[in-house]
Amino acid sequence: MKSYEEAIGLIYWDMRTGAPKKGIAQRSEVVGELSGELFRMSVSDEMGAFLDYFLQEDNHGQLSRTDRKIVSECKKEFDRSKKIPPQRYQEYVVLTSQAEAAWEEAKDKADFASFQPYLEKIVAMNHEFIDLWGYEGHKYNTLLDMYEPGMTVAKLDQVFGALREQVVPLLSAIQASPHRPDTSFLKQQFEKEKQKKFSLFILEQMGYDFAAGRLDETVHPFATGLNPGDVRITTRYLPDDVNSALFGTIHEGGHALYEQNISLELVGTPLCTGTSMGIHESQSRFWENTIGRSRAFWSRYYSDLQQHYPGQFDRVEAEAFYRATNEVKPSLIRIEADELTYNLHIMVRYEIEKALFDGSVRVSDLPEVWNEKYRDYLGVVPSHNGEGVLQDVHWSGGAFGYFPSYALGNMYAAQIARTLDRELGGTDALVAEGRLLPIKEWLSDKIYQYGKSLTPSEIIMQVTGEELNPSYLVEYLRAKYSDIYKL
Amino acid sequence: MKSYEEAIGLIYWDMRTGAPKKGIAQRSEVVGELSGELFRMSVSDEMGAFLDYFLQEDNHGQLSRTDRKIVSECKKEFDRSKKIPPQRYQEYVVLTSQAEAAWEEAKDKADFASFQPYLEKIVAMNHEFIDLWGYEGHKYNTLLDMYEPGMTVAKLDQVFGALREQVVPLLSAIQASPHRPDTSFLKQQFEKEKQKKFSLFILEQMGYDFAAGRLDETVHPFATGLNPGDVRITTRYLPDDVNSALFGTIHEGGHALYEQNISLELVGTPLCTGTSMGIHESQSRFWENTIGRSRAFWSRYYSDLQQHYPGQFDRVEAEAFYRATNEVKPSLIRIEADELTYNLHIMVRYEIEKALFDGSVRVSDLPEVWNEKYRDYLGVVPSHNGEGVLQDVHWSGGAFGYFPSYALGNMYAAQIARTLDRELGGTDALVAEGRLLPIKEWLSDKIYQYGKSLTPSEIIMQVTGEELNPSYLVEYLRAKYSDIYKL
Repeated sequence: MKSYEEAIGLIYWDMRTGAPKKGIAQRSEVVGELSGELFRMSVSDEMGAFLDYFLQEDNHGQLSRTDRKIVSECKKEFDRSKKIPPQRYQEYVVLTSQAEAAWEEAKDKADFASFQPYLEKIVAMNHEFIDLWGYEGHKYNTLLDMYEPGMTVAKLDQVFGALREQVVPLLSAIQASPHRPDTSFLKQQFEKEKQKKFSLFILEQMGYDFAAGRLDETVHPFATGLNPGDVRITTRYLPDDVNSALFGTIHEGGHALYEQNISLELVGTPLCTGTSMGIHESQSRFWENTIGRSRAFWSRYYSDLQQHYPGQFDRVEAEAFYRATNEVKPSLIRIEADELTYNLHIMVRYEIEKALFDGSVRVSDLPEVWNEKYRDYLGVVPSHNGEGVLQDVHWSGGAFGYFPSYALGNMYAAQIARTLDRELGGTDALVAEGRLLPIKEWLSDKIYQYGKSLTPSEIIMQVTGEELNPSYLVEYLRAKYSDIYKL
Repeated sequence: MKSYEEAIGLIYWDMRTGAPKKGIAQRSEVVGELSGELFRMSVSDEMGAFLDYFLQEDNHGQLSRTDRKIVSECKKEFDRSKKIPPQRYQEYVVLTSQAEAAWEEAKDKADFASFQPYLEKIVAMNHEFIDLWGYEGHKYNTLLDMYEPGMTVAKLDQVFGALREQVVPLLSAIQASPHRPDTSFLKQQFEKEKQKKFSLFILEQMGYDFAAGRLDETVHPFATGLNPGDVRITTRYLPDDVNSALFGTIHEGGHALYEQNISLELVGTPLCTGTSMGIHESQSRFWENTIGRSRAFWSRYYSDLQQHYPGQFDRVEAEAFYRATNEVKPSLIRIEADELTYNLHIMVRYEIEKALFDGSVRVSDLPEVWNEKYRDYLGVVPSHNGEGVLQDVHWSGGAFGYFPSYALGNMYAAQIARTLDRELGGTDALVAEGRLLPIKEWLSDKIYQYGKSLTPSEIIMQVTGEELNPSYLVEYLRAKYSDIYKL
């Protein structure tokens, strides 16, 4: 089954990075065939018999801790999958595979209508699946649980509510501040080759292993861990923005460090992946924001940036670049958003996904609903759907329930960063010396190596000594932006 | 089964074009798993029952001609495969997958010893398989038949004997000629980007469809038809040789035109591929040599070449370039060989393969045997194994019996070219006007569209009105080189 997953992962990577268009329809059939077979194996009588055998008390008692975890993961997946008719599942896989290609074109043309029929089918099939799986409280809970086990609408309403309570007044204070960073120098023309070279340099500094990965270019950046020896990332290069590709690369690089450093003992098992999307996002966002957007980072790497773009930053000080890079500005595009307003982008998607699954919003309403919520939450309105409702790849793949992980990731990241800072005797000092490898080692040791053999909750308890606590993120944001905006 | 083949094809393409090294071992497991499953399907009771059903006289009579051909292809494959234990087959696939990576490193380091154990296992397993399949006359016949149905050692000894009889005196006459082309201008420094751009330009002229393919860079150029909408080719760029990448590209482009133009009605069937390796090679070599190395071609495209390499060919006439490009010179590397001596490179490999399977040569002897034969046939001796016995990828994949296809391809190509010339009213005139598309259309119409639904013999009869006749190649070579060398 892991072999099938790896093959399918490679096909998806290829479809996104450069597969010829005319071959896509047939390739989608291939994905459908392999996914169907994978699914049949996962719900086979053979799998059922294996699970029965290993769950018998006598046999179960003899398993190692890791093997017991493997069995329970397989059992959970088995029970979940048994409820979907294999034929329907295969149709769903073909659908989402075609939808992703359709989305890419729709986004380019800002043409929601061409994507709408795909999205309607995807949402309808998710409703159908939720009814088969069952749900408690809110239909959307069943989807949330897939990405962050145990997460519910009730909890998210609470956590996001608390976060919003703190972020909104902080945002107001920032917007009222006269100390706005000058960002004009970020918007010059930057050659793609130079952007790529600098991105590769920073990846190397982070300890990304190029013998176990590669960097490519796609419309929407992503990381894919095919096995720990092959963890690929992508970014996109904007010709007039020095930061977009760089922070995209660091973000995906954070995901990749996680996957590259999973213990080789877990290869070929269902535990050879990140423990949850929230913890995964905590790592991408830790590297992107906590490290990459820190003053310490730019005190060390700003001269490298200057050298990579000769003449383009001669009159800009490191401190000015740091402040510009942390400009807070409500905007339209999630992946370009600053750390603070980012959470509001997530809340828009969270509200919409909730509404799609309690039936209060239809797919055909999405462009309008999207634009309204952007006005309400962020005070900005897309001029076309390409920079609005079509901006993210996620829904084309049916990944409803995924978005909240980003905000959870911010919270986990802030909490983990606090412990790391204490245990390594000051993260800033290390970063300022360009010593990022001890940080990668610490995270590998505490988090990455375990893959999915520990739960998110076990990880966060083991590393920080307490359950998820959103106050660390609030504290971090307040300290950082009070300083930058001299509040 | 076609879906599995397509997935495996993509994995191989990826392993050769840029997969991270550390992921290869695990990827080989994936290939082994999928190939094993493909093999199990091909020999399954279900397949047996399908074949029995469709071979029943009542049912068979109702099938279309194409469907009957599908059934007979599956039956042939089924009977062949049934004789190999699935476990042994899977081991073989894993072995050849690892061997290919080992070969690439061994070739780089000119280190035969590191590759020898892989090759010994591959040869031993082929012996084992031949014993299971059975053979008539010579063990090697069984392997030859896989690439060119019906081909035998007896026939090849005869055909190659006849060819050698004509080629050797022609070669002597050429070497004695005082009219040797000046080739000095071919050996300058050529930027990779310019080489790539010119290669892409010529591919476009040939009618290669970039929406159904792409060009990448590998150690050993190849073409892979994943489906007619995704036919990828690779080449390699030598910094000091203007022709290597170009003719590699045209060669693989010829293979690709074949695969891109197979009728879409055959997609998803076992007939959606070239009919034999010999016919496939006839197309790559037709485009590379008959078209690409013709005087008419350079009368049309030489000015484009000059423009792609500004200043580098200012003082060279088109005719001089044409003659240089057709220099006859015994050399070490097959894929760099001229049209005439190329056949001698094939004969070396043919003799060695024969000997490996009648037991007269051992794998450990290969470097020595190789070097001896190169001295005997071509009068040159490799200075290291990287430019000797390790130069070709084929054996690492277990493709014994494949090499003769190249020489067969030359013969088919010459015969087909004669008919094409007559039917289109002069190929040279079209080429001299840059009208390559009518040639592609004619070949698509006569050959490509049929895929494997006609046999090689049916194709050559249908197109040229007679069976394979090597005299066309001899005639073509004599006319071309008598002119160039003023014999």
